Amino acid sequence: MPADVHAVAEPARSEQQDIYAVIDLGSNSFHMLMVKVVGGSVQVIGRVKRKVRLAAGLNENLVLSRRAMKRGWECLALFAERLQDIPPQNVRIVGTATLRLARNVKTFLHDAEHILGHPIRVISGEEEARIIYLGVAHTSNCEQNRLVIDIGGASTEIIIGKGFEPLKLSSLHMGCVTFLDAYFADGLLTEDNFNAAIAAAEQTLAPILAEFTELGWQVAVGASGTVQAMQEILIAQGLDETITLQRLEAIMQQAVVCGRQDQLSLIGLAQERRQVFPSGLAILIALFRALGIKGMTLSGGALREGVLYSMLPQLQESDVRHRTMASLMVRYHIDQQHANRVADMAQSLAQQLSPRWSLTAFDGLGLLHGAALLHELGLLIEYKNHHHHGAYIISHSDLPGFTRAQQQLLMALVHNHRADINRELIAKQTMTSVLLTVRLTRILRLAVVLSMRRRHEALPNVTLSGKGEQLVLQLPAGWLDQHPLMRAELEQEVQYQQAAGWELELQ
Amino acid sequence: MPADVHAVAEPARSEQQDIYAVIDLGSNSFHMLMVKVVGGSVQVIGRVKRKVRLAAGLNENLVLSRRAMKRGWECLALFAERLQDIPPQNVRIVGTATLRLARNVKTFLHDAEHILGHPIRVISGEEEARIIYLGVAHTSNCEQNRLVIDIGGASTEIIIGKGFEPLKLSSLHMGCVTFLDAYFADGLLTEDNFNAAIAAAEQTLAPILAEFTELGWQVAVGASGTVQAMQEILIAQGLDETITLQRLEAIMQQAVVCGRQDQLSLIGLAQERRQVFPSGLAILIALFRALGIKGMTLSGGALREGVLYSMLPQLQESDVRHRTMASLMVRYHIDQQHANRVADMAQSLAQQLSPRWSLTAFDGLGLLHGAALLHELGLLIEYKNHHHHGAYIISHSDLPGFTRAQQQLLMALVHNHRADINRELIAKQTMTSVLLTVRLTRILRLAVVLSMRRRHEALPNVTLSGKGEQLVLQLPAGWLDQHPLMRAELEQEVQYQQAAGWELELQ
Repeated sequence: MPADVHAVAEPARSEQQDIYAVIDLGSNSFHMLMVKVVGGSVQVIGRVKRKVRLAAGLNENLVLSRRAMKRGWECLALFAERLQDIPPQNVRIVGTATLRLARNVKTFLHDAEHILGHPIRVISGEEEARIIYLGVAHTSNCEQNRLVIDIGGASTEIIIGKGFEPLKLSSLHMGCVTFLDAYFADGLLTEDNFNAAIAAAEQTLAPILAEFTELGWQVAVGASGTVQAMQEILIAQGLDETITLQRLEAIMQQAVVCGRQDQLSLIGLAQERRQVFPSGLAILIALFRALGIKGMTLSGGALREGVLYSMLPQLQESDVRHRTMASLMVRYHIDQQHANRVADMAQSLAQQLSPRWSLTAFDGLGLLHGAALLHELGLLIEYKNHHHHGAYIISHSDLPGFTRAQQQLLMALVHNHRADINRELIAKQTMTSVLLTVRLTRILRLAVVLSMRRRHEALPNVTLSGKGEQLVLQLPAGWLDQHPLMRAELEQEVQYQQAAGWELELQ
Repeated sequence: MPADVHAVAEPARSEQQDIYAVIDLGSNSFHMLMVKVVGGSVQVIGRVKRKVRLAAGLNENLVLSRRAMKRGWECLALFAERLQDIPPQNVRIVGTATLRLARNVKTFLHDAEHILGHPIRVISGEEEARIIYLGVAHTSNCEQNRLVIDIGGASTEIIIGKGFEPLKLSSLHMGCVTFLDAYFADGLLTEDNFNAAIAAAEQTLAPILAEFTELGWQVAVGASGTVQAMQEILIAQGLDETITLQRLEAIMQQAVVCGRQDQLSLIGLAQERRQVFPSGLAILIALFRALGIKGMTLSGGALREGVLYSMLPQLQESDVRHRTMASLMVRYHIDQQHANRVADMAQSLAQQLSPRWSLTAFDGLGLLHGAALLHELGLLIEYKNHHHHGAYIISHSDLPGFTRAQQQLLMALVHNHRADINRELIAKQTMTSVLLTVRLTRILRLAVVLSMRRRHEALPNVTLSGKGEQLVLQLPAGWLDQHPLMRAELEQEVQYQQAAGWELELQ
């Protein structure tokens, strides 16, 4: 094989120019995230993370220990090695709660900036909250008032915002590392320890409660490791993604049964999250109780993403889902005209069944539209099983603007857009009922078959109607006689749907 | 979600202009293949296939029955529905053996061309052989003399060529449909029936044997359904991909045990291939015996691909593997400079271990180079498990220039280029020994870690040496002290390799 394939492919670019890095000097861990922009969205090309636990080195006089500083500097020396290859203007480094609090922060920063060769910005609590909100807004889809919670190592940020605008910001002195040291120092996961931690957190929250509950919100999103751990636990335990107070309390009981920090073992709890999970859980329970949060999902981003997106003006698209879809189409070389054609056809079929087949309650139409746009995602890999490949890509991708459950539903729809129907995927998705998922699947499948010729002009006028779950597809008189391929494909589709137990008649 | 995402994505093109269609009116089945060109290679966007079995309608006077014609026309009416949307200059339709032989072919063609709205070219046997060879040359990698065999429904083409040049062409009147009718009409899979079919095929081959064996070949490739079925059977039965006479005869015995055509059931034989498999197998056995073929692999293409590539002048790259690699890099937005950097590093490490670690015998260096170029393929999907995603893409893609076993090896290497080592994939690939696959894996992994900074200038001078399978990696004195991240990564790599039982020392 020839040693170099540059010649026939796209021209080489000054590759380092395209790389961006964000470093977050958190109270629990230091992170470096390296990305490129590909096809209008962010592609992660590297991550380095070290559990520095800076907050553990802060004493009651707010003096950061030399040992903790040293752990930090050693970690920064690792980061520096990669950082030197990235253009300075593409690098941002922020420090949060512990560095904010430490009286001797200058000592730390002096050496740290020397090691990194870059300035470090220690941000205020309010600024941290603002950036976290931005990170959430850039990675989650929401048109209503949104409550955002981020439990860090030494601070917790609480924000209400709408769109890209934060409306109320707060940063409180409580975090999963500081609470670990304060309430679980004996290594015991007793009810007493939990209750003490929860009470302390509720007390910390008290002063800000009124203004937050007064403003109000429709959607609650969590952006921290604690929330991510909780979601992983729920999914591993066979539940859906929504975190509720009842579920939090049940998990707390499971932790109490384990008895000791070093024996903590919960289905779905990753080893690396174990240490600061109980303290984070206590804070989260307090937040749910004090603010009366009904349900919360995980955000796709937070502080690092907020810093990153503010460096990338080309990604300032206000509709996050739209940006995600547009980028996937470019990245996977999707035939966009055809994708839109199938989406239009699906919408038209759904309208004909409305309001009997209600698909709006859980954003069903939006997800149907998304699945239609992405249904040919897997063609880039191979034709024969491209519906499987598309589902694989969706299930493993980071899709800003979609929650995990929405992603599962998209995956089930794309997998089932053609050929044999996999009912297990429909049953396993936790976004909505099996009934509604089946309805979306059936509409998408018909839209795909009817758009087969990949031309708007070639689409027949169709009428889709039916009783209950029995569908009747009507085409203009004589049309099918003139279109034997479409007839063959639709008859095949009737077989597929009937094999799945779904009544479909062709007239 | 907005109804239309055209605005932010790449400009819409006149999409139908980019679609090409090839129709092959074969003696067993009619195929329509529709493709687009994406990133410098062919992407299939649709296939329609119908088992018309035209050859079964040809009587001993070479008159094609009205019934067979009707089956053909009905199929063409399906094709016509899609064809009308494709620019005429992008369409090619060829007819083969049965249409060549039929005395009343004009009757068939008259209506057929009317239905399709396109001219049909009935090609001569020699032309068919020439085009098949082109299809093989465009989809398989070979620098030596190559024997190509294609067993059709009513003819068998035999070609010897080199590169893109056919040197000797032959088309014989024997095929799996005509032999089914002639030797297995009673539905019995007796040894007698097989032997009669084999003898007849050997007799048909007799006149051309001398000139083919005289010219000679180094590599034998098969391009028909029979060869594909055999390969699927071998792999399903846990063997490697190479078809040998011994394996063919063993499968024939398995078929004889089944006794009847309608009870034929072999592990790995797809239902749809069952009918014409025994007759094709008999012809293949005759070819192996008469020509003394030692081993044969499956080609990635044949007649349809030959017709297709002759329509696509932009794909006339003489090095098939190079075209495949270059296209994958563009399609999956791979950082090509980095891919080449890792490939260079892998080559340099391999050279240092040569000749003790022999990696040339089975094209190991070529496949190592390929795996290095593709190792970041899965980054487009997601960072954390991108090695798994890359392996998924490779295992499901059509990779012209690589046999199935080579593809398996590439997959194992890409999967194992980082993080935990999956020894099962190494054991399961059938391209070469576990020992040699482990060697390639270890070299690739070290090349990836050493190229971590994504800059040529940042690469250290390394010495890789060792005894047997024990490796020692030496870096310049003091270098690692100045590069703590590289040290941490290399130490981690030592852990990974040792966990897999592979001795690696860092100096």
